[in-house]
Amino acid sequence: MAYKRFRYVKPEIRVLGIDDGVFAPHTKGTVDVIGVVYRGSRLLEGVMRTEIQIDGTDATEKIISMIKGSPHYKQLRVILLNGVTLGGFNVVDIQTLFERLKLPIIAVTREKPDLEDVRKALINLPGFEDRWKKMGNAGEIIELSMREGKVTYMQIAGISREDAERIVKSTSTRSNIPEALRVAHIIASGLSKME
Amino acid sequence: MAYKRFRYVKPEIRVLGIDDGVFAPHTKGTVDVIGVVYRGSRLLEGVMRTEIQIDGTDATEKIISMIKGSPHYKQLRVILLNGVTLGGFNVVDIQTLFERLKLPIIAVTREKPDLEDVRKALINLPGFEDRWKKMGNAGEIIELSMREGKVTYMQIAGISREDAERIVKSTSTRSNIPEALRVAHIIASGLSKME
Repeated sequence: MAYKRFRYVKPEIRVLGIDDGVFAPHTKGTVDVIGVVYRGSRLLEGVMRTEIQIDGTDATEKIISMIKGSPHYKQLRVILLNGVTLGGFNVVDIQTLFERLKLPIIAVTREKPDLEDVRKALINLPGFEDRWKKMGNAGEIIELSMREGKVTYMQIAGISREDAERIVKSTSTRSNIPEALRVAHIIASGLSKME
Repeated sequence: MAYKRFRYVKPEIRVLGIDDGVFAPHTKGTVDVIGVVYRGSRLLEGVMRTEIQIDGTDATEKIISMIKGSPHYKQLRVILLNGVTLGGFNVVDIQTLFERLKLPIIAVTREKPDLEDVRKALINLPGFEDRWKKMGNAGEIIELSMREGKVTYMQIAGISREDAERIVKSTSTRSNIPEALRVAHIIASGLSKME
């Protein structure tokens, strides 16, 4: 499927930032996944939630259902993910997200993903081949130079590298990750701690 | 107890905005109450959650426990509430909140509270006298003139009218209620809808 192209990245572009809650190590069960709608980096406009299995394989489908079921879906221009593994090693297939949602996907992390470490963890889980294929679908790990000498990493689907870089930078006004992801992390972990 | 006085309201003052989730009419059970920490009107710094009984009498105690148990408690300067009734008619005693938390309390609403309507609803619930006393503890309903001819109402505890007015106005940059309350409403209702 063709890329989504951006002639001009509006400062007020509507993005969805997605992150997962925290859970005790070696827990079974589900964890919250929170989506936060931001207009650019300034205005929080909406919040959505779903649940995924810890170390499961349902993250891609649950995220698609959450977004398609949201009243904000038609306004969204880009989906931002805090990395491609949520709920432990529940791998998100960003190519499938792009094809099913018809929206560009940018997975952003502060730390460079260590694929060898991920591979070692996945090999002990059921369905290794399929999980590893999803990891591969996330494509090249691209390094971005942010303000104050900071570095951020991204993997992309359905968008050019240049457009993705402009969107990550224009929505990261208060830290070296987009505000929608910073706030999704605060909400998801804030809710988890109280349970 | 003496008022908290503010010589100068910093634009970056740390406030907590509290709102409740939505629930179907005539439901029993509990509803989420969400607290959002904002620095002024611009930076979301934290999220906390508790649960209260729909039409119950535990809102005051639950809010006190939520705030005292939060790592943000010592940074907070003011508590903002979306009105004094949460979870239906679970009345928050803002004088008790002030005395126990040692923080000024400002209950803000877009619509003028109709005390006669509230009284008619409360009279059908157990513990009417105590609920009505809490309503009385919220004090005078003060009208504030906001931008663009809009009006907002507040009831206060532990703070002068002038300081409360300055804080409500300085933290309401994007609507006629403080940003922390606008966002607490979005989070609380966004989470409720997905359940």
